[in-house]
Amino acid sequence: MKVGVIGLGRMGSGIAQSLLRAGHEVSVYNRTPEKAQALVALGASAAGSIADACLGDAVITVLANDAAVESVVFAEAGILANLAGAIHISSSTISVSLAERLTAAHSHARQRFVSAPVFGRPDTAAAGQLVVAAAGAADAIQAASPLLDAMGRTTFIASDTPKVANLIKLSGNFLFASVIESLGEALALVEKAGVDRQKYLDFLTSTLFDLPVYKLYGGLIVREEFEPAAFEAQLGYKDIRLALAAADDLRVPMPLGGLLRDRFLTLLAHGGDHLDWSAIGALPARDAAEVTSSG
Amino acid sequence: MKVGVIGLGRMGSGIAQSLLRAGHEVSVYNRTPEKAQALVALGASAAGSIADACLGDAVITVLANDAAVESVVFAEAGILANLAGAIHISSSTISVSLAERLTAAHSHARQRFVSAPVFGRPDTAAAGQLVVAAAGAADAIQAASPLLDAMGRTTFIASDTPKVANLIKLSGNFLFASVIESLGEALALVEKAGVDRQKYLDFLTSTLFDLPVYKLYGGLIVREEFEPAAFEAQLGYKDIRLALAAADDLRVPMPLGGLLRDRFLTLLAHGGDHLDWSAIGALPARDAAEVTSSG
Repeated sequence: MKVGVIGLGRMGSGIAQSLLRAGHEVSVYNRTPEKAQALVALGASAAGSIADACLGDAVITVLANDAAVESVVFAEAGILANLAGAIHISSSTISVSLAERLTAAHSHARQRFVSAPVFGRPDTAAAGQLVVAAAGAADAIQAASPLLDAMGRTTFIASDTPKVANLIKLSGNFLFASVIESLGEALALVEKAGVDRQKYLDFLTSTLFDLPVYKLYGGLIVREEFEPAAFEAQLGYKDIRLALAAADDLRVPMPLGGLLRDRFLTLLAHGGDHLDWSAIGALPARDAAEVTSSG
Repeated sequence: MKVGVIGLGRMGSGIAQSLLRAGHEVSVYNRTPEKAQALVALGASAAGSIADACLGDAVITVLANDAAVESVVFAEAGILANLAGAIHISSSTISVSLAERLTAAHSHARQRFVSAPVFGRPDTAAAGQLVVAAAGAADAIQAASPLLDAMGRTTFIASDTPKVANLIKLSGNFLFASVIESLGEALALVEKAGVDRQKYLDFLTSTLFDLPVYKLYGGLIVREEFEPAAFEAQLGYKDIRLALAAADDLRVPMPLGGLLRDRFLTLLAHGGDHLDWSAIGALPARDAAEVTSSG
């Protein structure tokens, strides 16, 4: 398929790579055009404008937050004004309410829209091994499926209402952050009793919690390896807030969600915006006045 | 080895079975002797008293709580008064402070003591597939290892200080309860947006959270299958309180631990003592006034 990718941060670049590898014809666009160069070397074409990136069968947006998506979609020279037959696939982690606005705007313009946020980190994006939560009208999902298949190892078709995919993405990040918090508290508890944190983590992750997410985040906490960030704390904070905003609208109390929000606030208050989001897992040891390697 | 098992609830009976299968000579004792019959049919001998169960190389206690362990160990006709050369292996989930008392009392009586609480449910106990956290003097652990090997698929030697194994056990139950709470909140959130809970859980547990504990507890929450309990809420509540008591002593704030304590209190206040502990995962949907199958 002929597909545009708008937004060439690490996730967008990874997705563009996996699309190229699957044999799709990929044009790439970024506000700062330098980021396109590495992809052009891999066979992509550089789109000169958002409109140029909208000329194919589909355009995928992979942007950092609601504001970036709004500007790319609703601007005068944006997607909404330039989409002919292409499907807009939104793979950014955005609010449920913005997904609802996008759905309405595209529908009003008689354009097809699929929400397809993704789980994974830049390396899994580049490997085409993301986990995709997709929602939208059946015909749009069907038409987009060769692209979704190239991006991910699994696609969960959640609903025919696009915003539901965004809620599922946010709920997943809530679950990940819950893992980080629980590991952070457990590690602080056993360490203060004299247990070696690495040995404890190795025990957990070779038996009861033999899962990549426990190994990854547990390892980052134990080694206090929060830079460079694979996923920044400010983005983790954003996602927990978006999950809570959806919970507000739906009237679903989430006390653990609220606790996580406060953890991120504490981290950001101490200047942790650009640390990996797993750095909230170091706060329990700090609260307990433990002397760790960096303490 | 010749080994006594004191406490024939479902976990104790399961452990006795796995010891018999491994070829050990097992005598069994329970306050209400009827529970010994099934094990006698499998080749165990029925001990007539606690003292009788202490005559071999080791005696394993598998009891419900601190009070039961105290009564079996410190009573006039208890273990402390009757242990000759046998090692006392404590596999009950007890407080860190009781483990400390047991260590001191056995040491004073020149007796060997190993703390070896276990992770698993009655069926994994019967299969000899528990995960064991063990701590104690190296020679005692060494002598006990054929028994620990028969009980579990893995033994984590945590420390030479017995109480550390109890802390690790409590931290593990804290992590499990955290999984239950996070799944309960995520399920309540997506369900109120119209997502099928079973499909959502299947998606999670086939991708990002492909781990037995997420499948088990997620399935129980989705199906609201809290009876019969494999692990009662009142015991889960006890363990979270014991984790928090250890955290109090060590000066380790655990906000998620505090949240879990309140969840269990809510469940018990509504008469949930004998439900499976995963029933705290149904509280978020109730708070959100969702109409579920039983609502």
